[in-house]
Amino acid sequence: MIKPRTMPGVMELLPREQIAFQRMLDVIRRNYERFGFLPVETPAIELSEVLLTKTGGETERQVYFVQSTGALEKAGDGTPELALRFDLTVPLARFVAEHEHDLAFPFRRYQMQRVYRGERAQRGRFREFYQADIDVIGKDGLSIRFDAELPAVIHAVFTELAIGPFTIWLNNRKLMRGFLEGLGVADAQQQALVLREVDKLDKRGADAVRATLTGDGFGLSVEVADRLLDFVRVRSHGHDDALAKLAALGSGSPTFNEGVSELREVLEMVRALGVPESGYAINLSIARGLDYYTGTVFETTLNDHPQIGSICSGGRYEDLAGNYTKSKLPGVGISIGVTRLFWQLQEAGLIDKAESSVQVLVGLLDASRLHDNLQIARELRVGGINTEVQLEARKLKAQMQYADRAGIRFVAMVGEDEAARGVVAIKDMRRGEQFEVARTDLASALRVEIEQSLAMKAAAMPHGGAA
Amino acid sequence: MIKPRTMPGVMELLPREQIAFQRMLDVIRRNYERFGFLPVETPAIELSEVLLTKTGGETERQVYFVQSTGALEKAGDGTPELALRFDLTVPLARFVAEHEHDLAFPFRRYQMQRVYRGERAQRGRFREFYQADIDVIGKDGLSIRFDAELPAVIHAVFTELAIGPFTIWLNNRKLMRGFLEGLGVADAQQQALVLREVDKLDKRGADAVRATLTGDGFGLSVEVADRLLDFVRVRSHGHDDALAKLAALGSGSPTFNEGVSELREVLEMVRALGVPESGYAINLSIARGLDYYTGTVFETTLNDHPQIGSICSGGRYEDLAGNYTKSKLPGVGISIGVTRLFWQLQEAGLIDKAESSVQVLVGLLDASRLHDNLQIARELRVGGINTEVQLEARKLKAQMQYADRAGIRFVAMVGEDEAARGVVAIKDMRRGEQFEVARTDLASALRVEIEQSLAMKAAAMPHGGAA
Repeated sequence: MIKPRTMPGVMELLPREQIAFQRMLDVIRRNYERFGFLPVETPAIELSEVLLTKTGGETERQVYFVQSTGALEKAGDGTPELALRFDLTVPLARFVAEHEHDLAFPFRRYQMQRVYRGERAQRGRFREFYQADIDVIGKDGLSIRFDAELPAVIHAVFTELAIGPFTIWLNNRKLMRGFLEGLGVADAQQQALVLREVDKLDKRGADAVRATLTGDGFGLSVEVADRLLDFVRVRSHGHDDALAKLAALGSGSPTFNEGVSELREVLEMVRALGVPESGYAINLSIARGLDYYTGTVFETTLNDHPQIGSICSGGRYEDLAGNYTKSKLPGVGISIGVTRLFWQLQEAGLIDKAESSVQVLVGLLDASRLHDNLQIARELRVGGINTEVQLEARKLKAQMQYADRAGIRFVAMVGEDEAARGVVAIKDMRRGEQFEVARTDLASALRVEIEQSLAMKAAAMPHGGAA
Repeated sequence: MIKPRTMPGVMELLPREQIAFQRMLDVIRRNYERFGFLPVETPAIELSEVLLTKTGGETERQVYFVQSTGALEKAGDGTPELALRFDLTVPLARFVAEHEHDLAFPFRRYQMQRVYRGERAQRGRFREFYQADIDVIGKDGLSIRFDAELPAVIHAVFTELAIGPFTIWLNNRKLMRGFLEGLGVADAQQQALVLREVDKLDKRGADAVRATLTGDGFGLSVEVADRLLDFVRVRSHGHDDALAKLAALGSGSPTFNEGVSELREVLEMVRALGVPESGYAINLSIARGLDYYTGTVFETTLNDHPQIGSICSGGRYEDLAGNYTKSKLPGVGISIGVTRLFWQLQEAGLIDKAESSVQVLVGLLDASRLHDNLQIARELRVGGINTEVQLEARKLKAQMQYADRAGIRFVAMVGEDEAARGVVAIKDMRRGEQFEVARTDLASALRVEIEQSLAMKAAAMPHGGAA
């Protein structure tokens, strides 16, 4: 006998949790499609040579290699030939380069699949987790306008997920780069070191960071360090404030001015796309992936749960697939780490126990009514209602308890009396009410109940009308 | 520069194909949920010790083992500690045994995920492929009635997939076992050998199989071999014929009689569930997984494409999780190999090029209208319509060509004239028609068009009303 268990570091859900998780995936997918993004799925296993174009680094140490006993495949240098993807960006680069001539650019793609990382087992760290990414890939250029669509998508997704008020933080890496150039920090590597230090502002506090920046390693003057710290503290409150704060930055190097103008255009378009101004702000401290992003950058935080950190991040990059093709493929994208997000929301008590995907249980008290119940179930299913039939007669109480525990909203019952009168008795478990409907109207009557409560739920959402 | 490519033996699709594939997955999922099955997802990576409870055999040789460079984890005997699942049945057994006390039995679960097999690369053989499984797991027994629900699910799925007429073949392994007992072949191993031979009937022909069965290895008499061959040739045409052919088998050993009575009950319930009698038949040659199934067995074939073989198979088994728990967990299930099915349907020309998931392209001829177009897109999206906005002005012809190639049905255009008159010009690419709608009615008017064509499509289905 072997003890049944998963490996550590994976999230496996019971059915009712899985239903809640699946609804989250569905909302994300629906909104990604609403904005015109096209689905792509790639294999979880890639050729190591293709996946690991850059060697060294934390990512590589976390790569899972794959080999079968039947056909042990090794590359020339003895490393395994196959590996599991660790993100969706490298597979996207491979996909776009491989199918370049079959795709229309700008190419809007979404991808929602699991990725794999050999992390040390640790609470809240996952070795297998869903990412839900969208990217727009251009060929030989991509207008800044595409950057502005992504906050609108983020807004639509998190509005419909209804997990509370949130803020999409916008920045542009050219601003900081230009600003540092203006302060005399022109070398890219030195800039990166300074940024890494500034990134610790929240954790270490201003005094500690100032001390480091003015210390031996960096040698900035106190005045320069303070200007830097003032700069990264800029946050806006409302659209006009964002524009005013951008204007107040004045002008600087060409890079700096480009950053200002790009960020301004993004802000204007985000408003034109109908995102309410309480939903977005500029935040000049946002850096994201220092080596990767080159322009617009995004983060998203829950207003009431800042400790969760960014729940959706991304930005603009110069060249997606330089390892695979000579074509210049700039892009802009965002990613939601769905598994981690779901886990965090559960921890924070923000995930309601989902009702079952089963909407009606057709109960059975008397085995002789089974075939009639199968016919009732058939009518409900044709009417688009997810229906489970009790196939073995049980006591009423046991069936009600089952429906209650499973989160099934309606229990439909037909006894001799109901059959004679041509009606079905319905117990609404959510409201604790019981009523009868004519057998001939059963599916349509329940359909109406279900749709009404969906509509009420949508109307009750915090940003109901804004998506 | 590295050549971008996938490993051999995977199916990677371009967006329009992926949309068709995704629709297939959606139909399967929707119908599984319609019948009250609950979603489960398990990690792709399992502990080898848990996954590979039985050693040896073809499956084990095809297992992909997994290890990370950072944390090379090996079990005591030196084999890798982690492996990729090769089906969804072993993970289900592990899941049910692990969460036994949190699940309600009978437990109806569906699972649609990818599985991995280190197959030799070969046309139409996949190393990574989707399976879409449903199973009902009982505890200490499971009524035969559950077996009968599965053909109803199969019927609903393939009716909605609309890939042509199909037949669900039903059999019961007790029939053949009882029949062989009656012929004096009582030993289970000898039965298996005989069945394996009989299974080659279609391939080798009756004469060759008869010759083998009456030859040295088996030593059956010609008369016994002929009775066996007559038995496995039994097929029904229509419900009454199925019952008549069952009756004509007479009675035999207790096992045989049980098989007859179970198959009869399944047939009666399948009819009561509304499956039209053209959709199912008995076929006494169906055996499926000789070592595994013990009662009801299913196969499904496309009437016009028998060469594709079974597109959905399954059956009843005695004990799901004997390796993990002392509880007796009988079950019945079916599986659709979605990747292989999609590939075969493509090869047979049965997959229409899908329309895009994008329903409307908002065209842009004049950059000054961009912000108004963003507003139009917003209204369409709020109206539930998947909308792509052209963010850069292009020639009308180029935009129409793009929509045509991408399979986007509607192109919405607003020029100065339309704006002045408060209308939007719509080109319906599918019908080649152009019309105008009032700007204020845009989303609802297109919604009506889209829903009408969905309703027409449903009405045109071969078994439209039966699901």
